[in-house]
Amino acid sequence: MTAPLIDNLQYSNWSEKIFRQLHQGGVHAVHATIAYHETFREMVLNIEEFNRWFEQFPELIFMGRTGDDVRRAADEGRTAIFFGFQNPSPIEDDLGLVEICHTLGIRFMQLTYNNQSLLATGCYEDDDTGVTRFGKQVIAEMNRVGLVVDMSHSAERSTLEAIEISERPIAITHANPAWWHPALRNKSDEVLRALTDAGGMLGFSMYPHHLKDSSNCTIESFCQMVHEAAERYGARNLGLGSDLCQDQPDSVVSWMRNGRWTKTVDYGEGSASAPGFPDQPGWFRDSRDFGNIAEGLAAVGFSGDEVAGLMGENWLRFYDDSFGPQ
Amino acid sequence: MTAPLIDNLQYSNWSEKIFRQLHQGGVHAVHATIAYHETFREMVLNIEEFNRWFEQFPELIFMGRTGDDVRRAADEGRTAIFFGFQNPSPIEDDLGLVEICHTLGIRFMQLTYNNQSLLATGCYEDDDTGVTRFGKQVIAEMNRVGLVVDMSHSAERSTLEAIEISERPIAITHANPAWWHPALRNKSDEVLRALTDAGGMLGFSMYPHHLKDSSNCTIESFCQMVHEAAERYGARNLGLGSDLCQDQPDSVVSWMRNGRWTKTVDYGEGSASAPGFPDQPGWFRDSRDFGNIAEGLAAVGFSGDEVAGLMGENWLRFYDDSFGPQ
Repeated sequence: MTAPLIDNLQYSNWSEKIFRQLHQGGVHAVHATIAYHETFREMVLNIEEFNRWFEQFPELIFMGRTGDDVRRAADEGRTAIFFGFQNPSPIEDDLGLVEICHTLGIRFMQLTYNNQSLLATGCYEDDDTGVTRFGKQVIAEMNRVGLVVDMSHSAERSTLEAIEISERPIAITHANPAWWHPALRNKSDEVLRALTDAGGMLGFSMYPHHLKDSSNCTIESFCQMVHEAAERYGARNLGLGSDLCQDQPDSVVSWMRNGRWTKTVDYGEGSASAPGFPDQPGWFRDSRDFGNIAEGLAAVGFSGDEVAGLMGENWLRFYDDSFGPQ
Repeated sequence: MTAPLIDNLQYSNWSEKIFRQLHQGGVHAVHATIAYHETFREMVLNIEEFNRWFEQFPELIFMGRTGDDVRRAADEGRTAIFFGFQNPSPIEDDLGLVEICHTLGIRFMQLTYNNQSLLATGCYEDDDTGVTRFGKQVIAEMNRVGLVVDMSHSAERSTLEAIEISERPIAITHANPAWWHPALRNKSDEVLRALTDAGGMLGFSMYPHHLKDSSNCTIESFCQMVHEAAERYGARNLGLGSDLCQDQPDSVVSWMRNGRWTKTVDYGEGSASAPGFPDQPGWFRDSRDFGNIAEGLAAVGFSGDEVAGLMGENWLRFYDDSFGPQ
């Protein structure tokens, strides 16, 4: 098969244009966020919207469920779309919804999105009380059915506890090391070491707020950071999770940050003077630009095999191990 | 493989006892009703309950999705449980929920349960206005994804229209011919002829209200009726759909009949003096009694191949043709 190209986090304003760009960029799989603050029923409406796209554009996209679907996508020149939640709101307070969501195709679920959830503490809370009683039950159930725990937006202690409690490797699908760029959303060396020591995966984010020098971040700086991460944590536990939010109106970033939980505006990683989505760096504007990253990784000294791992093989191995029953 | 034994309609008060009786009776597949008046979210709770049984009794039962799951059940000595709705309430007013329900494993859906629905007219209404605008869209979507239209509780015109509109064969999963026992729920010769001419299936009911002489119906009378039906409609379009409602408290038959739609009690096929579930005939008390029916069918002159067809092979062929995309 063609070496797989996997972007393990996008939240774009999906359209035929974007599906064609995924095709043009040779992206075989993308983990697509389909819920931030949705209830179960609202999340199902989002799957229904994808189902209509799957019906409308079968030559471009289909729903991904297993690692073999990535191989199928690579063979057929299509893109497998894997679903994920950035917040556990779709499982409400109901443990049984974990398996239901897995049956519907969900493959990643964050235990928190910035705020305290029923499961754990988000990275914007003052106090981090770790994984809750319900959270422990949910992690065990996610382990059982093959739904990956994602701690990208979770607080430090909660993340370390989730790594410890989970019997299967977990993921931080979209973040960078704090030692490169100390943003609230980037992760400590301790977290990244614990994550990767347990077989978990880190997906590097190309979202400007997670990049050193933001939209002006150079590809050299980004790739040198990846190289340093590979030296610290091993190249096999690293991949991409671009966090690309393409063509989204600013109303969407407001929904992501504020949901229905506040009446006063929370700017999250933005600010009152820059409330919207930041500009992408020039070397990663959309899904046609992954070639720049592969070249940049080779330029900082990665071998061909290592580049193939970082661009998709590492995620594919993780998919193979993670998406089915234990 | 062992000749498949399929009961294409039960609505029992499921328990380990009943799962063991299915096993003892050699039942390889059962179509289980999981919704009468439930909303989508309430129906999902019913799947969750089954998921816990699947987890608890893996040596006895598993969720069926395809004809091959019946073969797997026969090979492994287990029972595949196929889900169905007796009312379209779980798809609410949302066409997209048809595919979502199929993904969750639903394989049969009645367009109506006794009353007018958003899709068609039930057999207890005074006026039968046929398949609605939404109903036509839903039938097309059911055809597309592989969810079988079931008209067991529908009115005459609606049933004839559904047979005509559906591009794939439909089913009447649990009813008997009105020429044998003229109950409101039993079906006219015209309906049964149109159904089977179009490749559809009839499942014979062993629910006393659908039997000549009710609980006192003899196995000879039942099997002679099947023989007559085979002469009229061909033996290959016939199977079993016992409508067994085992161990249910009478509160459940009240829920089936009254849901949340009335404040005055509707007795359906019962009466004020006999509001509960009727007694099963002695030759079919539970899932261990299918041998009586196979013997009874042979006794009225069916060949071994015909008996095998009636007991499961006909449904299995229909499952193979019906449960996937068109």
